[in-house]
Order: sequence, then structure tokens, then C-alpha cells
Amino acid sequence: MSLRPASTPQQRADQVLERLAELFEIGRRAGTNRPGLGEGEQRAHDLVASWMAEAGLSVEVDPAGNLIGRLPGSDPSLAEVWTGSHLDTPPDGGMFDGALGVVAGLDAAAAVGAGSVRRTIAVVAFRLEEGCRFGRGVFGSRAMVGDIEPDEGDLLDADGVSVAQAFAELGLGRLPTRGWADPKPACFVETHIEQGPALAAAGAPLGVVTSIAGMAGFDVVFSGSRGHAGTVPMSLRSDALGAAARFVLAAHEVAGSIPGAVATVGRLVALPGATNTIPGRAELFADLRAPDAAGLDALVERATAAAAEAAAAASCTAEVLLRWRYEPVAMDPATAAAVRRAVAGLGLDPVDLPSGAGHDAAIMATAGIPSAMLFVRSDAGGVSHAPEESTGADAIALCAQALESALRELAA
Amino acid sequence: MSLRPASTPQQRADQVLERLAELFEIGRRAGTNRPGLGEGEQRAHDLVASWMAEAGLSVEVDPAGNLIGRLPGSDPSLAEVWTGSHLDTPPDGGMFDGALGVVAGLDAAAAVGAGSVRRTIAVVAFRLEEGCRFGRGVFGSRAMVGDIEPDEGDLLDADGVSVAQAFAELGLGRLPTRGWADPKPACFVETHIEQGPALAAAGAPLGVVTSIAGMAGFDVVFSGSRGHAGTVPMSLRSDALGAAARFVLAAHEVAGSIPGAVATVGRLVALPGATNTIPGRAELFADLRAPDAAGLDALVERATAAAAEAAAAASCTAEVLLRWRYEPVAMDPATAAAVRRAVAGLGLDPVDLPSGAGHDAAIMATAGIPSAMLFVRSDAGGVSHAPEESTGADAIALCAQALESALRELAA
Repeated sequence: MSLRPASTPQQRADQVLERLAELFEIGRRAGTNRPGLGEGEQRAHDLVASWMAEAGLSVEVDPAGNLIGRLPGSDPSLAEVWTGSHLDTPPDGGMFDGALGVVAGLDAAAAVGAGSVRRTIAVVAFRLEEGCRFGRGVFGSRAMVGDIEPDEGDLLDADGVSVAQAFAELGLGRLPTRGWADPKPACFVETHIEQGPALAAAGAPLGVVTSIAGMAGFDVVFSGSRGHAGTVPMSLRSDALGAAARFVLAAHEVAGSIPGAVATVGRLVALPGATNTIPGRAELFADLRAPDAAGLDALVERATAAAAEAAAAASCTAEVLLRWRYEPVAMDPATAAAVRRAVAGLGLDPVDLPSGAGHDAAIMATAGIPSAMLFVRSDAGGVSHAPEESTGADAIALCAQALESALRELAA
Repeated sequence: MSLRPASTPQQRADQVLERLAELFEIGRRAGTNRPGLGEGEQRAHDLVASWMAEAGLSVEVDPAGNLIGRLPGSDPSLAEVWTGSHLDTPPDGGMFDGALGVVAGLDAAAAVGAGSVRRTIAVVAFRLEEGCRFGRGVFGSRAMVGDIEPDEGDLLDADGVSVAQAFAELGLGRLPTRGWADPKPACFVETHIEQGPALAAAGAPLGVVTSIAGMAGFDVVFSGSRGHAGTVPMSLRSDALGAAARFVLAAHEVAGSIPGAVATVGRLVALPGATNTIPGRAELFADLRAPDAAGLDALVERATAAAAEAAAAASCTAEVLLRWRYEPVAMDPATAAAVRRAVAGLGLDPVDLPSGAGHDAAIMATAGIPSAMLFVRSDAGGVSHAPEESTGADAIALCAQALESALRELAA
């Protein structure tokens, strides 16, 4: 075995941060750019695979292209303990989202060491977790549990490349149509930065996730009439961007009126996009989230109604197409309790909090795999999906130690 | 001379429509795509140059790349009579905007015939009239009268190509810094489709323009804070697209409250443009127009204030940058009167109307060249800057005859 010599918590944190910095440079512009199923994600997988091998893990690439590194336990008949996250990023993303869970997972597994626990520990990097490239994410975890839609290969990115095409170009063949998480892992623990301000506000470096918000994604298309910017009186216009603008404000307002709910229009395109042409078409994507099913129902219903109202107010029409919906998911109490004990074992007060972001852990939990999440404080005001994303070395050191303890207990 | 034999009005209208259809196929997708200073515009210039030569005109390309075909008059010492328009289009534009003025001008000049009038008649196709490619248009006419900004070569299109680069790639060398309309033409008559519904509503095939609207173009950039779509409470967001949406609605509302004014946001970009990221930046272009100076002043002032208010309401900041402003311009009474007599000479009631769109004729008029415009009825509800743009053959036949009469009188 080529396991590194035992390191201090500070040395381990330094290595985790060095590796995150190295990954950050892959696809670096303002932030890092590693769209799922793309070349940058592949380079990140290759780099992590080399670190896995260096740490003595056996490396596998599964039918979805997920990267899995295994540290054998003493009893191969027992179900495995999984940890990890993803290596893709949104456009100009930060250094921690996704990558931290993989790199810290590898650090913790290596610190546990081969053969020192009964269960095999597997570190996984799931493919295409972010939904921004194709409008639908958590691809690798969904593929593993057999939750890929029949027509999902046809989804297109902004350059017209389909999921199936991007997948094939990685040398992975055809999209898998059936899952392979059989036997299921005993449990899954995902470490992730909080991507919000709650832990920083509580003065806590680590938190334990209780549930993951429900969320729905919609394509909304407004159609009006194109025309010359100088010659059509305001009263006779059917300006599709006017309708879209009304919808954006209404969606924000609706979310603001439902406790814990949020609504984001992150992508909006006015067509034809000429400065002197009234937009005849506006396309946008609405990302709606709420902590419980009742809130999500209300949010979806009222935002859908708002699209029709916005269209009517601008003499346009609206088409609303649900692209995905994930119900709120509770984390597994027993697995979360192990994580909580690991945090408390460091002398920290384990802060429970919900996750407003979706994660691979929600997919695993929905598929019946007992799942938990260890959240790490986001500094920089909780900014995420941006180059400014930041977490101090103190929290990084603590998260690696807590994850190591949790894996030791869960794999014991 | 290779002038065609005398044709009937119907034959002439057929040829004009055939030529417009041939030009329409250059850069054809949904509509035609011939961005100014681009390859499609160049092909259109080359094609029209061949028609000019075929009709016996002497062809010149001036330092701005404008195409000028001259039919010599009997007295070369007299100032020339100019007619024409432009051959570039907005994205997916129509068959008539710009091209009609060039093709009908050539038809009318050829019908007048060489040596039959004292003044030389020049048919011109100005470069880059549409502002949509670089955010600033009427380039060819402004260059001719010496109205190019020192830094105008640095303006970029959506692909990052500068005006100077596009210009040089056409083999035209460096941007001209001084005008060359010396001696000035005696007058300029631009034939153009109305691009609005007024003539159709009046049941008139032809109209005479009294004035061209004032207009101002602004870049507006809203800056907020990027963040994860799931983790930042609505109350803590600085969503730049929220600010932009408020501005769009406010600009529409302000324009609606000023008589004859219009406001168009034709281009809007939310950044980074990921579906699951709160937009930290939104960039848009606002095109504001009003028929008189007082209206334009009020529109600009109130829209600028609205940008600041929209930013504040969304906890963002706004930068507003004036890109261009053209004052309202009156057409020359004497030149317009000649056009009016030509229309009346066909037994038609000459309808006077203002132009809400900007035209090369406004640049020529501002430079002290007596200018007039002959407007031709827009069918299809006045839709323009769109593939549906349409004018019936009856109106085309009448416009060519009216222009011929006007040129005969002005060049006599």
C-alpha cells in the first residue's frame, strides 16, 4: 500500500485545500468551468482517480461514468459505506461546491485506512450534478439508482449538444437505462459546503442536514409579436420580454410570500435579441424551491398562474413546461446521528439545518439508501456558484476529521 | 449603354420584387441575415453593383464601403441628386427594409435614363444602417458626412468582433476619420417601407415623411450578488435580473405616458446565465424614441431615473451609459414637396406622416443635405425587422413610378 504517513489535521487540511485549488484551475476563467459530461469534468475525474490510486484505493468507473474508489474493509460480505459528491460546476463556479465532498471523502477514507474497519469504504464522484448545462442535473446518482427518463438523452445544452452525445463523446457508450446500485450501499454521507449563511451566522464550522428542499424546474416561453423598435405604438405591442419581466417579478414575489421558499430565474433569453427589434419571443427557466411539500405545491401553482397573467398583461401567450420536480427528502435519522456524534466528538455543537440546494444525497435517500449530509460553513456571506465561494482552513480541517470519525463508526 | 428597353410599370415592379427576393436569399434562415460590415451585406453590395453596371451606371465604392452608382446628367457642373438606402438587415429580417430603397432607386434611375436630365443621379447603398450588430448604426451615411466617433472602431458585436476589424476584413483598410460629401449632393430622396401600420390604415400605398423621430440608445448594467438558487433567502438577495425586469416594465410604462414615444428593450442578458444561479449581473440595451425634442428629453430623463429606482428596489446598482442620441429631424420642405407632387401625379392622395424609425436620410438632413423620404405601405400589419415584412406589388409599382417622377423633377 502506498498510503501516506499519518498526518496532522493541519497537514490534511492543507492537502485538501491544495487539491481543491488544483481542481479549481481546470476550466478556470473568472471562476472554474467544468460542465457535467464535459472535458473539464473528465479532467477532474482523471486527476481524482490518480489521487485515489496514490492513496491505495481501487478505482472503478461505473456505467454512468461515476468515479468510485474503494478502500477494502475486513469483511467483504458486508454492504459498503459510501461518501462523496460531484466534480462538475456551474459556469464560473467556485472551489468548494461538489469538489470538497470528493476530496474530503478521499482524505477521510485514507485516514481511516484499509482493513481497519469491517465495511469497505467507497469514495464516489457522481457525474453531472449541476442542472445548468442541460436543465436537469444529479445525472450520475439518478443513473445509478435507475432514475433516468427515456428521452433524457435528447436534452440539449446551449450549444445544441445532447446529453447522449456528450455522454458518448466521453467514450461511455450509450446512456444506461437501468440502475446498478445492487446490493445497495449501507449508507451514504455527503460532505458539502452549506452554500448559504446559516452556519456562519450560528458561529458553527459544521452542520448536519435534516432534510433537502423540494424543487421544481420549469421552462417558460412567452410569445408575442416581433416588430420595429421605432414604429409600433406602445399600445399595439405584444412584447414578449415585457411578459417575461412581469413573470420574473411575480415569481420572486410569490416565493417571498411562502415561508422558506425561493424562486430564481437564472437564464432568460429575449429573441431575436436585436437592440432595435421588439422581442417576439422570450425564453426563461424558473427554479422553484420550498422546504416542504405544501409550500412547493403552492409555489408551483401560483408561479404557473403568474406566467399566464404576465402573458395576458403584455398581450402575449405563455407555455409552461415542467422539466423536473423533486419532492422534499428527509435525511436518515440513524446515519445523521452518526454524523452528529462525529461533530460532537470534536467538541463542537452540531447544528441541524435543512438544505435549500439539491444534492446527490437526495437521490440516494429517495432510492432507499440511508443518507446524511455534513455541511461545512460557507464564508464570504454564503455566496456559492461563484468564484468568491470560500471556506476557511479551520472548517476544512474539522470537516475532514468529523467525516473520518463518522466513516469509522458507520463502517465499524 | 446597356439600358434595358422601356418596361411597363408591371414589368418594372416584377423586376424590383424579383431582385428583392434574390437579395432575401442572401443569409436566409427564418428571415434574412445580412449584418452590416459582414459577409452577407458584402454579397448584397456585389449583387447590386452588378445590376448597376448592367443598367449602365458607373459604379464606385467610397471610403466607407458605400456603393454608389451614377447615371450621368447632361451638366456635370451641377450638384448631384441622390437616392438609395441600405442593404444590411437585423437578425432574421425581412425582404423590404433597406433593400427596397436601393432596388427601387436603381429602377427609377434607369427609367429616367442617362443624359435625359441635367443633374447626375446617384443611387447609393449605405453600409451598416441597422444598429443591432454593434449597438450603433447609420455608419455609412455618418462616415460620409464625417460623423464617426474617435473610438467607434472599438465597438464590439456579440462575437467580440470590433467595427474596425469587420471593416478591415472587407478589404476597406482603416476607418475613415473625415467625411467626403463635398460638394454636397443637391438633395437625397430615400424610399423605404413604412414599417408601421399608418399608410395601410389610411388606405394609401405611398406617404411622404415630414420628420424623423429623435432617439437615444442606452446600455444599462445592473450589478447584484450571484448566489446559489436554493440557499439564499428571498429577503437577502440582490438579484440583478429582478432589477432588470423592473426596469423593462418601467421603461415601457414611461414611454406609454409620453405622446408618440416608444421604449424597447430588445437585448437582455442575465449572467452567469445558469439555471441554478442567482444572476449577479444583467445587461440590457434600451432604445428610446420620441417624435419631438421635449418628449425625448422627458423619456430619457425618466427612464434613467427608473434604472436607479429598479436597482434600488432589488438591492442592486445600475450603470447607465448613453451610446447614441439623434435629435428629431425635419425633412426638407422643398424636396418633400417634389416627392409629394410625384405621388399626386399618379392620382394618389399624398399622405404626410412622421417616421418613428431612424434612417440614413436623418443623417444626411442633419449634415445640411436637403432630404426627403418616400414611404411605401407595409402590409402584414406593419410588421418589420421580421421575415413577415411584406408590401404588395401594387404599392411597389407605384413607388417606383413616383420616385422616377421625383428624380426627373429634382434632376431636371
